[in-house]
Amino acid sequence: MRTLIRNGMVVTAADEMYADVLIDGEKIVALAATGSETAASWAPGAGKVLDATGLYVIPGGVDGHTHMQMPFGGTFAADTFETGTRAAAWGGTTTIVDFAIQSVGASLREGLDAWHAKAAGVCAIDYGFHMIVSDVNEPVLKEMDVLVGEGVSSFKLFMAYPGVFYSDDGRILRAMQRAAGNGGLIMMHAENGIAIDVLVEQALAAGKTDPRYHGEVRRALLESEATYRAIQLARVAEAPLYVVHVSAAEAVTELARAKDLGLNVFGETCPQYLFLSTDDLARPDFEGAKYVCSTPLRPAEHQAALWRALRTDDLSVVSTDHCPFCFSGQKDLGRGDFSKIPNGLPGVENRMDLLHQAVVDGHISRRRWIELACATPARMFGLYPRKGTLAPGADADVVLYDPNAAYTISAETHHMNVDYSAYEGRRVAGRPRTVLSRGTVVIEDGSYVGEAGHGHFVARSTCQYLR
Amino acid sequence: MRTLIRNGMVVTAADEMYADVLIDGEKIVALAATGSETAASWAPGAGKVLDATGLYVIPGGVDGHTHMQMPFGGTFAADTFETGTRAAAWGGTTTIVDFAIQSVGASLREGLDAWHAKAAGVCAIDYGFHMIVSDVNEPVLKEMDVLVGEGVSSFKLFMAYPGVFYSDDGRILRAMQRAAGNGGLIMMHAENGIAIDVLVEQALAAGKTDPRYHGEVRRALLESEATYRAIQLARVAEAPLYVVHVSAAEAVTELARAKDLGLNVFGETCPQYLFLSTDDLARPDFEGAKYVCSTPLRPAEHQAALWRALRTDDLSVVSTDHCPFCFSGQKDLGRGDFSKIPNGLPGVENRMDLLHQAVVDGHISRRRWIELACATPARMFGLYPRKGTLAPGADADVVLYDPNAAYTISAETHHMNVDYSAYEGRRVAGRPRTVLSRGTVVIEDGSYVGEAGHGHFVARSTCQYLR
Amino acid sequence: MRTLIRNGMVVTAADEMYADVLIDGEKIVALAATGSETAASWAPGAGKVLDATGLYVIPGGVDGHTHMQMPFGGTFAADTFETGTRAAAWGGTTTIVDFAIQSVGASLREGLDAWHAKAAGVCAIDYGFHMIVSDVNEPVLKEMDVLVGEGVSSFKLFMAYPGVFYSDDGRILRAMQRAAGNGGLIMMHAENGIAIDVLVEQALAAGKTDPRYHGEVRRALLESEATYRAIQLARVAEAPLYVVHVSAAEAVTELARAKDLGLNVFGETCPQYLFLSTDDLARPDFEGAKYVCSTPLRPAEHQAALWRALRTDDLSVVSTDHCPFCFSGQKDLGRGDFSKIPNGLPGVENRMDLLHQAVVDGHISRRRWIELACATPARMFGLYPRKGTLAPGADADVVLYDPNAAYTISAETHHMNVDYSAYEGRRVAGRPRTVLSRGTVVIEDGSYVGEAGHGHFVARSTCQYLR
Amino acid sequence: MRTLIRNGMVVTAADEMYADVLIDGEKIVALAATGSETAASWAPGAGKVLDATGLYVIPGGVDGHTHMQMPFGGTFAADTFETGTRAAAWGGTTTIVDFAIQSVGASLREGLDAWHAKAAGVCAIDYGFHMIVSDVNEPVLKEMDVLVGEGVSSFKLFMAYPGVFYSDDGRILRAMQRAAGNGGLIMMHAENGIAIDVLVEQALAAGKTDPRYHGEVRRALLESEATYRAIQLARVAEAPLYVVHVSAAEAVTELARAKDLGLNVFGETCPQYLFLSTDDLARPDFEGAKYVCSTPLRPAEHQAALWRALRTDDLSVVSTDHCPFCFSGQKDLGRGDFSKIPNGLPGVENRMDLLHQAVVDGHISRRRWIELACATPARMFGLYPRKGTLAPGADADVVLYDPNAAYTISAETHHMNVDYSAYEGRRVAGRPRTVLSRGTVVIEDGSYVGEAGHGHFVARSTCQYLR
Repeated sequence: MRTLIRNGMVVTAADEMYADVLIDGEKIVALAATGSETAASWAPGAGKVLDATGLYVIPGGVDGHTHMQMPFGGTFAADTFETGTRAAAWGGTTTIVDFAIQSVGASLREGLDAWHAKAAGVCAIDYGFHMIVSDVNEPVLKEMDVLVGEGVSSFKLFMAYPGVFYSDDGRILRAMQRAAGNGGLIMMHAENGIAIDVLVEQALAAGKTDPRYHGEVRRALLESEATYRAIQLARVAEAPLYVVHVSAAEAVTELARAKDLGLNVFGETCPQYLFLSTDDLARPDFEGAKYVCSTPLRPAEHQAALWRALRTDDLSVVSTDHCPFCFSGQKDLGRGDFSKIPNGLPGVENRMDLLHQAVVDGHISRRRWIELACATPARMFGLYPRKGTLAPGADADVVLYDPNAAYTISAETHHMNVDYSAYEGRRVAGRPRTVLSRGTVVIEDGSYVGEAGHGHFVARSTCQYLR
Repeated sequence: MRTLIRNGMVVTAADEMYADVLIDGEKIVALAATGSETAASWAPGAGKVLDATGLYVIPGGVDGHTHMQMPFGGTFAADTFETGTRAAAWGGTTTIVDFAIQSVGASLREGLDAWHAKAAGVCAIDYGFHMIVSDVNEPVLKEMDVLVGEGVSSFKLFMAYPGVFYSDDGRILRAMQRAAGNGGLIMMHAENGIAIDVLVEQALAAGKTDPRYHGEVRRALLESEATYRAIQLARVAEAPLYVVHVSAAEAVTELARAKDLGLNVFGETCPQYLFLSTDDLARPDFEGAKYVCSTPLRPAEHQAALWRALRTDDLSVVSTDHCPFCFSGQKDLGRGDFSKIPNGLPGVENRMDLLHQAVVDGHISRRRWIELACATPARMFGLYPRKGTLAPGADADVVLYDPNAAYTISAETHHMNVDYSAYEGRRVAGRPRTVLSRGTVVIEDGSYVGEAGHGHFVARSTCQYLR
Repeated sequence: MRTLIRNGMVVTAADEMYADVLIDGEKIVALAATGSETAASWAPGAGKVLDATGLYVIPGGVDGHTHMQMPFGGTFAADTFETGTRAAAWGGTTTIVDFAIQSVGASLREGLDAWHAKAAGVCAIDYGFHMIVSDVNEPVLKEMDVLVGEGVSSFKLFMAYPGVFYSDDGRILRAMQRAAGNGGLIMMHAENGIAIDVLVEQALAAGKTDPRYHGEVRRALLESEATYRAIQLARVAEAPLYVVHVSAAEAVTELARAKDLGLNVFGETCPQYLFLSTDDLARPDFEGAKYVCSTPLRPAEHQAALWRALRTDDLSVVSTDHCPFCFSGQKDLGRGDFSKIPNGLPGVENRMDLLHQAVVDGHISRRRWIELACATPARMFGLYPRKGTLAPGADADVVLYDPNAAYTISAETHHMNVDYSAYEGRRVAGRPRTVLSRGTVVIEDGSYVGEAGHGHFVARSTCQYLR
Repeated sequence: MRTLIRNGMVVTAADEMYADVLIDGEKIVALAATGSETAASWAPGAGKVLDATGLYVIPGGVDGHTHMQMPFGGTFAADTFETGTRAAAWGGTTTIVDFAIQSVGASLREGLDAWHAKAAGVCAIDYGFHMIVSDVNEPVLKEMDVLVGEGVSSFKLFMAYPGVFYSDDGRILRAMQRAAGNGGLIMMHAENGIAIDVLVEQALAAGKTDPRYHGEVRRALLESEATYRAIQLARVAEAPLYVVHVSAAEAVTELARAKDLGLNVFGETCPQYLFLSTDDLARPDFEGAKYVCSTPLRPAEHQAALWRALRTDDLSVVSTDHCPFCFSGQKDLGRGDFSKIPNGLPGVENRMDLLHQAVVDGHISRRRWIELACATPARMFGLYPRKGTLAPGADADVVLYDPNAAYTISAETHHMNVDYSAYEGRRVAGRPRTVLSRGTVVIEDGSYVGEAGHGHFVARSTCQYLR
């Protein structure tokens, strides 16, 4: 079964061209100049023809950082793999890489199996797994090798959350050394959680219990500290490093220094840090709780540093860290004690549109949009060239994107399983019209026409961004 | 007339894929997955089928910095547009951007006309022009607007060579302000020529006349100084800046600082700075004269900084600054006075192979090779997407590159019109097998089958690298 | 004749102690712990006993940057050596180093002789000369050696004021090389005057004639550019460098970089950059003209960078650049054309008090006050240990400073020969009570009791701050 | 009883002058110009006259970092307070600040009492205590306030030695916050001991047991990491920070960055890092064990960075970290396992002479010698102006230093209670001739004439270096 996408402007990380895209089964088979005889010859044999006149034809988004139904503080992220991947599709994202979690005392295998069980047969789009390593020890280091072989080739460690996910510097070093040998990529939550917990305790003791204090205690200096520390440990281990959800200008400075040295250090940020701020965290009537995530939102003046870093490649990826908790029934676990507010925001559905808005606003170019949201995460996480580009041989994960379909983001109309939107009322300039996942149309003119279980687990290769 | 390139690995700045490339006339019309039904359907209608099994299929090189038959110190660069572009083709380069020169007191138009006259009807491959502005004044500023409109959209200024090409900071500022308005790109020779001339005079007075003193007087600190100065002037003018032939680690530091600030500042280096050093300049028996160029070769320890910057994008382009003078009859004008040695090296034929060697040596990735040598110069100089990539709609400037065709560089076998090679005896790992310029095969299995005049002037758009 | 200063707190750059100071003739002969038997033994033999109870006893101020009766734009700075040095004494300054000027085409000797003639026999306090070199050439370079031998051991060059004081980079390099050999110190006015003049012309052409445009065209980036350039030239010449009147935060950054490299680079700022801003330059009714000086006043946010640099020693000296022009009759030469406003502010009388106010405000420590205003300029300009400290053997230039004598600065009460005060209405915390110059009381309880001609020319040694 | 020191050149951190120094009892009472009538008047009443012709008269050295009879790895540092302070006196040091140690589980008081007991009645010179805090908790934080009140105003924390002295970042933060409130100064051993211990374990498992591996596992990157971390924690706590025994160029870079920001961050290095290197650690036949200390010796190229930082004040103090263990019987506890070698070197006797050698070698100026070794440690640790300078009212801790008394350092002639010298065979240019402690001669013409118990405990004020 062949599908032909005609008359659109194909945009990849590298090229912009008017080209028709021919899909055969699950793969892109060819591109031809729009209007050419060759392109014209394809229409007769195509079972489906999609007209992309006036639209961009872009690779499906790759969201390298989601937490579907993640357990946190006694509750679970509100999106299941079913609801979350469906919402992702609506938002033009066709691959997620979610985080399987090792519990302390358990094996990686147990954690990975549990996450496979959650995702299998219910996803609307393709998915992969990173592995959160909570308990670094000798058997676990050996398991890391096995997981790389199974396509789970990245491992997240935490310098925060002592007693839960936290690894000390010795464990971090050991895991990095192992990754240096097996090709795995270490992802780091870089905040000094040991110091932060002191400040949390002091804040609560001082009666500072509102959500905004979540932002105040998680000091920007403690993010830059941990970022620098992770970089130095990676240098000792001679391992690459990927720092997740960078939010502080000071942390960007450390990444830029590492980049100037030519190190294999990469930074990710998320839309919430680009579009939201401590002003949101300080909203009255506990509304700030909607904006509690870690790293925290920062004062608005940090945003300029993040945008600049996205242009200079000191930050290389925009993921969502999608981890939604309902305001009612979940976020309110932390009324009277900000430290009990589940950490996380919804966003998997909004990322592509918010970043397109950034194109319109002049923050980034159109090609950089695709690079940050599709190509680089695909390369970073070993999905390239199957995902993240439009080229012969690639998976036919394609979005027909309407750059002029302005709309207002709202919880009333979004498809994520959460009772609020972090971007409520924000107007954005474009949205996906039609979305294909491995050749199958899953969103058609704004309606979901896919099915649970279409999405497959993708075994990933290793990071392609090393130099 | 259709040409089909089959079974090769297509490599662009962004993608690597096994794809067949279909050419119709002067353009690439389509790419299809190798072995697909679609690709198979193309063979019957193709007038010419090139088998690229085991080869890379890459965009033709774009050399953004050449000086064919340039007047210098009473002589002329030894390659004419005819011999030089032919040698370029042999080396896998299908577009050059050469420098037309305004003489002091003359108009830009006169200079440009003269260069058009030299190049018209004799080139083997396509060519464009930058404009060297030697005499900034009010009418000349106005001419800049006109030239941008004619596709000569970049202007080179010199902080060196007082009395010849030199512009003072006021003239530089005026030209930058104009470029900020008309979309032109200012290219800068960044050396403090006023200070250097003092050191030249002192060296000669002290009897230091050998070629190696050319390198000693042109201090690295005076390159970094001028680089920083050019950057600050560009900031004042709010104009982008492209610094040519960066050779000193200290200058790279200034570029990296500018990059960290998110400025539109770009750096170019050349193979000679990556592969040669002051050890060559110090060769006995006046052999060092072969290596006299400005900026000069640096001590070998600078090379690591340049390679690193090519990876971090603090340097974005590798051009040749091809400007050959024969050792016998030209370089020896400077016997007994290094300041009279014509400045320049041959290299237009060697660039693609030397950079491929850098891939083999692990300095850069395969995709970065294409980015540095093809895609970025094309974007930088407004040639994209016609040049620099392989995509439907692009010019069919294509190289079938054999990565295993090791050979030894030598003046005996090269095709540049110069009696020595700067890389004599150096073994490199690959070379072009077949080269197409706008759909026409010009090099076939190592033989030149093109013709003078096939190459056309290309009117360029403005720089696409602004952010 | 012996003078005894009793019961005060002696403050030097290094020490704070309660000590009595014994003066014999023109010199400090001894210090003894207040209340000690030794101190008590001095009183009988003292011809004069000054009680410093509740006062600081500090070295007389050394103002390393004044321009008495300097010609500028067709007029002369309003203070003569007589009026200016008297005002200095009132302000607690007991040594000035003024700038003799070489005219283009003339010798250094002619300029120096002229300044000697102006100062001889009229000064209230001691004075030395720097030499402004406007015309670097071979004979002038040789004269530099002679002048160092005569105690004129520092030479100021200008990167601004083309056609008047401006030296190009080649001349600067030559002068620096000479200074590297003869122990002279190069002082630099670091602004890119060539570029600034373009902006001046454009501003005037656009009808921007008010004083505030003086600040706008003299861009901070053009100060940091020139600062970096001067540093690099000094590195090439292997000469020390002293950058005068630093006002821009960006220039401080370049000084800090140089300091981190361990270079012999020193920075001076002035009270006007610490206490005034572009808000003053923008005062209506041409009042802004009172604040026209070069480098110009900067936006107030630069002040924090300057204060910080004074603490970190990235700036090492506070001088005044005292160069007063009356608002009426002089400054108004530039009505309708800011470029014709004579450049300069009065300040020689205010420096010690303004800096003491900075002690009160917490910007600097008491010892640092003395270091910045007395000890370091004395060392920098070869006056140490005669000037700048209180130690046996030093000149008895001593100030009894009352830290609690708050008053309001005003042109009505100041002693400088100029019709306005740049600090009109500003309240400061302390002022000199009694001032001695080489053992002679010149200010007593706020009255001038000195005489014209008491002040002598001081032949200076070379800079003692080299490392 | 009065003592008069005549005819010497007095050198302090700020001044150099020919002055006679009059001592009355334990204090300096006056200085007078040599040869003056005033000076001449002192001789008759002086009980003792010391002729300093041809000598420097300098403040006694202040060694802010010693470990007399410190327990380590089952043994004790070989110098008692009696032998160690005697050796210090021979070396021109008249004050040490030693480290009392809190054991885990015990109070600060218990540790301090134990150290008071060791030192009381046996010291040749004055001494103070820092407090090593091994167990930060609520009662201990309160004890810190008390100790500051008792003149133990500085507290050392360790980021290394897990299980012994190590504090995690939370404990560090709490202690810093307390110090911010009570005026205490936090001193930091900045190495990432958690990561280092992993590398130690891996090295030993790989059979790398020789002393030189001590240097290899304690990576410079792990010193710079900890340094940066300590700085950020201090910023969060708004507390000053003093980093002890800095040895890595990379750590200096972090200190320089902090300085550029104007932070109250100070660095100390030691003679061993300036004069010794990993070449010594790699000496055969277990001789390397003599050079085992932490932070470790670094490759010789780090020395240039340290010297430069001493000039730029990015390092402000040179202490010894004197902690001697005999090669025979102590160091050899670590044969076959470098991690069991007691950490520490002898040096308290050598510091002043090695730094004077640095003056002769041109690394630092004479005044800077006194500043680094006397004045700044005195100010830093609240001993100023009693110690560290020569001024009326100061303690009469005075050294008559012979700059021409060259000799060769050797264990055979030194007075420290240890069987080897780290500087064996090194020739130095000068040595103390006569040493006074609080007015009493303790070294006379190279003989010890003092007595145990002359030295008193000095209650210190708080750090005077804050800005």
